[in-house]
Amino acid sequence: MTPTLAQKVQLVAADASFILEAGGRIAPVEVEFETYGTLAAGRDNAVLICHALSGDAHVAGWSADAEAEARPWRRRKPGWWDEVVGPGKAIDTDRWFVVCSNVLGGCYGTTGPAATNSATGRPYGLDFPIVTIGDWVRLQALLMEHLTIPRWHAVVGGSLGGQQAIEWALAFPERVARCVVLAAAPRLSAQGLAYNAVGRHAIRNDPNFKSGQYYSGLAPAAGLAAARMLAHITYLSEASIDAKFGRRLQGRDRPAFNHDVEFAIESYLDHQGKAFVERFDANSYLSIIRAMDYYDAATWGGGDLVAACARIRARVLVASFTTDWLYPPAHCRAFALALCQAGRPVTYVDLPSPYGHDAFLVEADRVGALLRDFLAAPEVAHG
Amino acid sequence: MTPTLAQKVQLVAADASFILEAGGRIAPVEVEFETYGTLAAGRDNAVLICHALSGDAHVAGWSADAEAEARPWRRRKPGWWDEVVGPGKAIDTDRWFVVCSNVLGGCYGTTGPAATNSATGRPYGLDFPIVTIGDWVRLQALLMEHLTIPRWHAVVGGSLGGQQAIEWALAFPERVARCVVLAAAPRLSAQGLAYNAVGRHAIRNDPNFKSGQYYSGLAPAAGLAAARMLAHITYLSEASIDAKFGRRLQGRDRPAFNHDVEFAIESYLDHQGKAFVERFDANSYLSIIRAMDYYDAATWGGGDLVAACARIRARVLVASFTTDWLYPPAHCRAFALALCQAGRPVTYVDLPSPYGHDAFLVEADRVGALLRDFLAAPEVAHG
Repeated sequence: MTPTLAQKVQLVAADASFILEAGGRIAPVEVEFETYGTLAAGRDNAVLICHALSGDAHVAGWSADAEAEARPWRRRKPGWWDEVVGPGKAIDTDRWFVVCSNVLGGCYGTTGPAATNSATGRPYGLDFPIVTIGDWVRLQALLMEHLTIPRWHAVVGGSLGGQQAIEWALAFPERVARCVVLAAAPRLSAQGLAYNAVGRHAIRNDPNFKSGQYYSGLAPAAGLAAARMLAHITYLSEASIDAKFGRRLQGRDRPAFNHDVEFAIESYLDHQGKAFVERFDANSYLSIIRAMDYYDAATWGGGDLVAACARIRARVLVASFTTDWLYPPAHCRAFALALCQAGRPVTYVDLPSPYGHDAFLVEADRVGALLRDFLAAPEVAHG
Repeated sequence: MTPTLAQKVQLVAADASFILEAGGRIAPVEVEFETYGTLAAGRDNAVLICHALSGDAHVAGWSADAEAEARPWRRRKPGWWDEVVGPGKAIDTDRWFVVCSNVLGGCYGTTGPAATNSATGRPYGLDFPIVTIGDWVRLQALLMEHLTIPRWHAVVGGSLGGQQAIEWALAFPERVARCVVLAAAPRLSAQGLAYNAVGRHAIRNDPNFKSGQYYSGLAPAAGLAAARMLAHITYLSEASIDAKFGRRLQGRDRPAFNHDVEFAIESYLDHQGKAFVERFDANSYLSIIRAMDYYDAATWGGGDLVAACARIRARVLVASFTTDWLYPPAHCRAFALALCQAGRPVTYVDLPSPYGHDAFLVEADRVGALLRDFLAAPEVAHG
């Protein structure tokens, strides 16, 4: 399957402005997105997939050549959820019209910190306004109108994508029939805030960061790589790191005894850091982790999660993974319980998996089976 | 109690050399240490305390004024184990002659990367040879000879200090009567290696690091602070971070919506990072975490931990803490089991505590009670 080429559309004109939850405004706003499959005549087969922190709109298939030329990292592998999305797959693009857009503040075509700030004529950098998951979703709602889709058959996401799915069900209850929340909780734990704080610190204090105005010079690669390496550890589990790497040396029988890469796990993380700085912008990373920090679904209920959940009209599927310690099962279960207490229909599954947070991607077969069934589930009847 | 002023002694002369486990050599080698209490006429009341990663020889009491003048950070608080060590305390300095020395490679007076490399006339920096916990212990053995102590009544340590205690019992079985291992395992887990890898990466790639030759310019403060902040998270537990900070904002009711310190946990980590770079040298941090990485007690048994344990003549106390995920209880228990299998006398306690790895310091009362009893336990009879 070749997906459509990524499309870009200006959803907020230069003379309008998109007012943000935190109080700022941005204009113009462009959104880059991809679609897969065909919108049915009844416009009732649209599925929105929301990407996670370092993901993008390119969900499935290999990019077209022109695309790959412009974004070389895409050439190496197919879309990030290619095992789940495509013709005949769990999210069957022969049946569903799949939409995925790059988030506001990111670095993959949707307006973000590298865009030109019309007030100064130079890139926003760290002056890019704070955006929230609520803002991301409201911008996706503008895209939805642009695509003339009245209601999503389903909104689906994992991790930060799962929080977008939650926000969709809360902010636009009438426009979401089904909501799938994988490896995501209504808010980040204090430990999660702590990891983001270290990543933020590493980036902002990298001497090359220069208050975010580094676009004409060296990027803060050391800080961004450190942030990514650290985050990557939180995506794995102790057991999966141990099984995959243990204390094995990298390509040697005996230690070299130096400060270079010595253990296999170091080599792996080093590679993750290096690859990430080639494809991600540090200011976008800061923008996105701040959105992750601030998100709290309970805000819709004045701090009361059950009151918030009462707004929801969608049928909800929540899946956690036993060894996920970034969005631990207990936190995901709390969301499912709040939905129950609010009298909303919810299916909650805690999938046994050794792969930690990454399980929502790694366990593609089992997640796919859940999704296939859930997309076929009847809508909730509202009296 | 005022401890003795820190003393410094040259244990390896400039024309000799201290041969290292990894193959390098260092000369001269100076050791800074402190002692508390009085060595008995029979020389049989000496207790060695081994400090952890960021600790130092100043175990207890407030520093003398001259000391505090030279090392201002010490003025703020008493020694790092003041609750446990002192007259009438669990490690009673009216009874025991307590010794603690700064580790080789550190930055508190014992020879380390900031010392002058006689081969080049400038600081060693990253050219400081790789040192191991085995080297630290062999240097402590030279100090022991200097102090004319034939045998330790006990060697006691937590975390990296606990690994030194293990190494003492293995390397010098006849010189250790009792061995106390708190919150430490025979080796670091793959996840622990991963955290150290990120810290190392952050420091080495800080643009100010300059391959370790930064002493005449700016220190790699951003990288070192990031490493410390990250490590600090691993010293706490998810529950303790949540209980102490949760998602509370720092000094505000509503978010400020910016990238500065916003949450209480961020403020705390920020402070930890800032305070650390004022008192620690990045090259020493690299030296010490590498020693932490390489340590594997099983090496004494050719990779077989039980065979290694058969060497031990000391009575051993192993204490883990239920929420410690840096040296998790299962790994500490494995050491106790190996001692059992080797027919060595061991007491193992898994102390319930919410404080994670830090519990070995925070739970001073309960750890103290264990220590008081254990120091009074009879020696193991050897036939």
